Amino acid sequence: MNRSIHELIQEMTLTEKASLCAGLNMWMTKGIERLNIPAVHMYDGTNGIRKTNSDEEMGITSENVPATCYPTGSAIGSSWNTELLHEVGVALGQESKKMGVELLLGPGINMKRTPLGGRNFEYYSEDPCLTGELGAAFINGLQSEGVGASLKHFACNNQENEKMVTSSEVDERTLREIYLSAFERIIKKSDPWTVMCSYNLLNGSYTSENEHLLHDILREEWGYEGVVLSDWTAVNDRIRGLKAGLDLEMPGPVHYNTKAIVEAVERGELSEEKLDQSVARILKLVERVTAPKETVSGAVQDYHALARKAAAESIVLLKNENGILPIQPESAPSIAIIGRFAKKPRIQGAGSAEVTPTRVDIPWDEIKELAGESVTLSYAEGYPADDSVREDLIKEGASLAATSDLAVLFVGQPEYAESEMHDLKSINLPEHQVKLIQAVAAVQPNCVVVTSSGNALAMHPWVQHVPGVIHSWLTGQGMGRAIAEILFGHTNPSGKLSETFPVKLSDNPSHMRIQGENGKLYYREGLFIGYRYYDRKEMAPQFPFGHGLSYTTFKYTDLQAVQHEKGVTVSLQVENTGKRTGKETVQLYVHDEECKWVRPEKELKAFAKIELAPGEKRKIVFELEERDFAYYNTKYNRWVAESGYFQLCAGSSSRDIRVTNRLFCDFGKEEITFHKFSLLNEWVSDPIAKDVLEECIDEMNKHVKDKVSLQDEFLGFWEDFPVIKIFQMFGQNWMMERSPDEVVGELIERVNEKRLEAQQV
Amino acid sequence: MNRSIHELIQEMTLTEKASLCAGLNMWMTKGIERLNIPAVHMYDGTNGIRKTNSDEEMGITSENVPATCYPTGSAIGSSWNTELLHEVGVALGQESKKMGVELLLGPGINMKRTPLGGRNFEYYSEDPCLTGELGAAFINGLQSEGVGASLKHFACNNQENEKMVTSSEVDERTLREIYLSAFERIIKKSDPWTVMCSYNLLNGSYTSENEHLLHDILREEWGYEGVVLSDWTAVNDRIRGLKAGLDLEMPGPVHYNTKAIVEAVERGELSEEKLDQSVARILKLVERVTAPKETVSGAVQDYHALARKAAAESIVLLKNENGILPIQPESAPSIAIIGRFAKKPRIQGAGSAEVTPTRVDIPWDEIKELAGESVTLSYAEGYPADDSVREDLIKEGASLAATSDLAVLFVGQPEYAESEMHDLKSINLPEHQVKLIQAVAAVQPNCVVVTSSGNALAMHPWVQHVPGVIHSWLTGQGMGRAIAEILFGHTNPSGKLSETFPVKLSDNPSHMRIQGENGKLYYREGLFIGYRYYDRKEMAPQFPFGHGLSYTTFKYTDLQAVQHEKGVTVSLQVENTGKRTGKETVQLYVHDEECKWVRPEKELKAFAKIELAPGEKRKIVFELEERDFAYYNTKYNRWVAESGYFQLCAGSSSRDIRVTNRLFCDFGKEEITFHKFSLLNEWVSDPIAKDVLEECIDEMNKHVKDKVSLQDEFLGFWEDFPVIKIFQMFGQNWMMERSPDEVVGELIERVNEKRLEAQQV
Repeated sequence: MNRSIHELIQEMTLTEKASLCAGLNMWMTKGIERLNIPAVHMYDGTNGIRKTNSDEEMGITSENVPATCYPTGSAIGSSWNTELLHEVGVALGQESKKMGVELLLGPGINMKRTPLGGRNFEYYSEDPCLTGELGAAFINGLQSEGVGASLKHFACNNQENEKMVTSSEVDERTLREIYLSAFERIIKKSDPWTVMCSYNLLNGSYTSENEHLLHDILREEWGYEGVVLSDWTAVNDRIRGLKAGLDLEMPGPVHYNTKAIVEAVERGELSEEKLDQSVARILKLVERVTAPKETVSGAVQDYHALARKAAAESIVLLKNENGILPIQPESAPSIAIIGRFAKKPRIQGAGSAEVTPTRVDIPWDEIKELAGESVTLSYAEGYPADDSVREDLIKEGASLAATSDLAVLFVGQPEYAESEMHDLKSINLPEHQVKLIQAVAAVQPNCVVVTSSGNALAMHPWVQHVPGVIHSWLTGQGMGRAIAEILFGHTNPSGKLSETFPVKLSDNPSHMRIQGENGKLYYREGLFIGYRYYDRKEMAPQFPFGHGLSYTTFKYTDLQAVQHEKGVTVSLQVENTGKRTGKETVQLYVHDEECKWVRPEKELKAFAKIELAPGEKRKIVFELEERDFAYYNTKYNRWVAESGYFQLCAGSSSRDIRVTNRLFCDFGKEEITFHKFSLLNEWVSDPIAKDVLEECIDEMNKHVKDKVSLQDEFLGFWEDFPVIKIFQMFGQNWMMERSPDEVVGELIERVNEKRLEAQQV
Repeated sequence: MNRSIHELIQEMTLTEKASLCAGLNMWMTKGIERLNIPAVHMYDGTNGIRKTNSDEEMGITSENVPATCYPTGSAIGSSWNTELLHEVGVALGQESKKMGVELLLGPGINMKRTPLGGRNFEYYSEDPCLTGELGAAFINGLQSEGVGASLKHFACNNQENEKMVTSSEVDERTLREIYLSAFERIIKKSDPWTVMCSYNLLNGSYTSENEHLLHDILREEWGYEGVVLSDWTAVNDRIRGLKAGLDLEMPGPVHYNTKAIVEAVERGELSEEKLDQSVARILKLVERVTAPKETVSGAVQDYHALARKAAAESIVLLKNENGILPIQPESAPSIAIIGRFAKKPRIQGAGSAEVTPTRVDIPWDEIKELAGESVTLSYAEGYPADDSVREDLIKEGASLAATSDLAVLFVGQPEYAESEMHDLKSINLPEHQVKLIQAVAAVQPNCVVVTSSGNALAMHPWVQHVPGVIHSWLTGQGMGRAIAEILFGHTNPSGKLSETFPVKLSDNPSHMRIQGENGKLYYREGLFIGYRYYDRKEMAPQFPFGHGLSYTTFKYTDLQAVQHEKGVTVSLQVENTGKRTGKETVQLYVHDEECKWVRPEKELKAFAKIELAPGEKRKIVFELEERDFAYYNTKYNRWVAESGYFQLCAGSSSRDIRVTNRLFCDFGKEEITFHKFSLLNEWVSDPIAKDVLEECIDEMNKHVKDKVSLQDEFLGFWEDFPVIKIFQMFGQNWMMERSPDEVVGELIERVNEKRLEAQQV
């Protein structure tokens, strides 16, 4: 484009403007040749690019153009490594440019409300801070290459079941603290070029036309100036959408809506100024994607190697008893590899995020390579591709395990279980796998289970019987190699769970409420999703949020916290006290000791992944802001940090807090504003108000039989009574024609006068 | 009154009408001498009459006129005995008449949402069916004596904390199925003369002026024609209240509101017709309370004996290992009675329900009488009146226990813990009692703990260390005798828990959400209060709802269920297989196997308390109605029973189901009504709609590259997509100027035409 956006808009016809606000086809915007405005090319992708074979194809159930397949969101979320996310973002930017992709339709960052969410494998975490930091790092990486991101799905699409006809009913505080918080952080830290609305309704209005969400919060409060586009077919009422700030409808061409926009402007129902704002934002996006950028030379980066590295950082060592891992080849001369996932790994989920990978590491092959020649490896399928229970395969697996020195089992959610558009039915492993593990563990105590899934798994029918468990998530095309390296100790595992693994499905806070009724789905657990819930309920998870073992050990000491003008600085020492170099993710949680409103027991507010050599010690410093101590107060509709004591808790997981310190934080104090229904205890807690009230009560007591006292037993019983009702109850024969409203109104006036006098003195 | 209500209203001045709609003082309505309309005299009371010394006194923190103190609501709720409730109602009616009380301000029947509710001791249960049956029996008894009841607190006042400024935010389905269900049942089965509104707001509007609650539901749906009166000072906007149907404001005289009513009528803001309706209902109440009734002669009933009997039916034997109970005097020649509640029993809660008892049975005295001369009894105080931990008292108690053959401990919530206006802080016993029990159990294995409280208790720090636990609730002035009789086997215990006893407070579904924020308290657990929650969460309570042991055993067999025109008849056999006569409460739960909407795992729908001699066998028959299989469907705003399989489960507690049968129930079937957003799977599930859609898709496929298929993988992936969005996604190059709204609109028309044709064939 060689003219300014302002000039272009002035030259455009109304129809051109309207048509620019929709796609041309499945994957392109409409260019306008006359004005030299090119189209924008966009494709699905977060853990890899899903470019279809033509721009007319949805292509979800077919093969697409091969691209590097990185770990899915929940997997890479467990890396807790912002540098890694940035690196993957850069690599995807480079690959996008090579493939002609200008806008990548990711990342998806929705909160994991339930482990049954069919699309959870795409999302990072159950925590807004972790999600926000990782998402911002990824987008900063991607956009540094001149390729746009699309932050999705905005907002509160946390299940697949009937998502297009279901309203997520979320109270404002929960919305702000849990479901919008990561969006807010990412927008402020990385300015994604686009935000994609979700399919669902939010509190009764489709997010594609939700004024509170798209305008009041996103534009006004957060100052977002990029393009908001619709998820594919998420538009319902195009005019309401434009008014709310939904700039771009996808896919196109939606001739009927172009017409509808033109007519709405002509009828005066939609202001042309509003339309121009959307057009300007779309033109700005065109400018951004077409800005000159460095081309990527042949082999800037070995993408497959990065995929392996990303997988290695994401895999979580959940359990490691009796030092069963890493495998010492000398003590395990024969190893049984059991389970068809060892040869046919599940590296990703299904749906619009499914990438056709450029190559795939097979665990069996990689294990073979790393085991060396001294080890005899054998293989048994263990379970079939369908969900039938095959006793013969179980028997074969168990007898192979019995005659080996060690068994490694590859199990996980079946292919069909995790996909966009369908929620999971269960978080248990299929019955045939549970039986296999139990049969193998019964005959072979040296047993390691490697699990694959994009969601938390419930492991309680078998986990106590095996000494080693590795959760490999769906870690993309480098997964096979990464698992092998962790098994043999070439990689020291460093992943930490990005979500809580409950003992059983029904432990989950949203249990059985992920299906809407009459188009409404109440987010009843409120603030208490993920570890916030397990903490509050004092319920032990199988493996807590933030959990992940290492082949070395770390010691935490000397947590210091100090408040200053800009916030609070927290520092601590971490030392590698083991014998191997390893990475530790130091997690900092904040606990509010005093707030009257219910708050989660603790909340993640910062984290840092560091590498330490044996014996190495490092000081970690976290800078917290006032906002990190605040909750969203719906009385004032703003974030409020209340003065009082807070605990700063640093640990290796949400349930493994190693050092804690408490700090009085001063965030100012507010004077009570008295109103009609202020309670007796509020009145007596304020010296001026107490005086005023006492005088009035003394007067009243002269006229009534049943006397009121502001002390002792009387006050103890009635303290939660609004003062107005004290008059209604005891003051009838004194008030006579005066109403209690008038009496209280006068008292409040007196208090305010006296406060003014006190200030003037 | 010697004129008809209609005539009286015609003679009344506007001011007289207005003044009749408020009390004269604390406890009377205004009579109108000129028209010979007498006042109505009302007083607090459910478990006894709280008549103050004068009509000018609130009298909550003072002594009042002595009256029989029966078990409080949660206690007598555990009797599961409708006949007993009726008998207590009759007795209270008689006593009321003797004391000049015409209207008794109870029963309180709110659901127990949280065990911290300060007023829970007044309420029957966590289950609407149990509450409803007991409440109706009580009211029928009371009103049969010509004394009116006041069903309270209507509705959704389930905590005390800031109840006057807090809105209970409850979704409509939960409101109907849980919080209003018992009110509905009682109103239909016993027609209470008055209903008392609560203090709180419900979904944003004070219940004293809530049109949806007081008019739409109570009057229109349920057809209630009695008087609605305000809880004391619950009125805020008197005019809105009258419009909604709040007839009587208490206490009075509220001259300012009489004036306000007159002015509102004169201004035309309130129709005189509306006022007349309230006046008519109040005059009807006057008629009812002044109707000629039998006077009660001197000693129709021994009220104290009835109080003892009610206590005996209500006390629950929670645990009885090694046959420690009943006490065999021959094997326990020396018994240590430990704990100050043995001499100073807590027989009731505090607040407006606190009765000044006519006499009080002291456990120590009653035990002494029943133990006989062969037993040596000794006493230790165990803990002080305040909450300090007195190691000397603990030591004394333990050494007394060690030197006796058996120890009986009397413990419970302290006096100050359970009262109107204040929620509990904890459901644990005070620390000094827990330490006492542990110390005693450590030295004396023959140990029985008797607990007193109006709420569930958490017992997990000590319950596993003692073989016997009796929960005596707050069972009124006959409690001491009843406990002694159960201890020595003179009474075979038959109480069953009317609420779940969780392992710990945080297990409770509403944990930490009983305090509102910004005036709103979300009932987030929805339908899942009480056992409905523990079932859903697969969480083991300490003692489940409906649990209670006996000194004999019962066998359940032969559950039969058959559907007929009027509902479903369920029958089963119950046999006393032990060696003592005993009472068993047979509980019938219904489980819906197929409903798409989330329903509780099972719900109590009927129960029967029967007495059986050893070896005696009886057939129990329950008649269920369609409503017993229904849930409140917010799509149609009515109760819906869906055809399908149901399980009928009969048991001795909610977690001790003894016999189950499943039955297909036919409640008819509904045709899908297609609309704009109907899903693909709905379209293909209906043969006619599928044909219509298929034809259209075939046509569309000719024009587009990416073909739509109504089969296999394609259908599998897209089945939850609304058909309109299928067109948006895949039909752009076919629809062109036509909008998907138009396309789907035409399809629906076609379906409706074809259905009509099919009917006509």
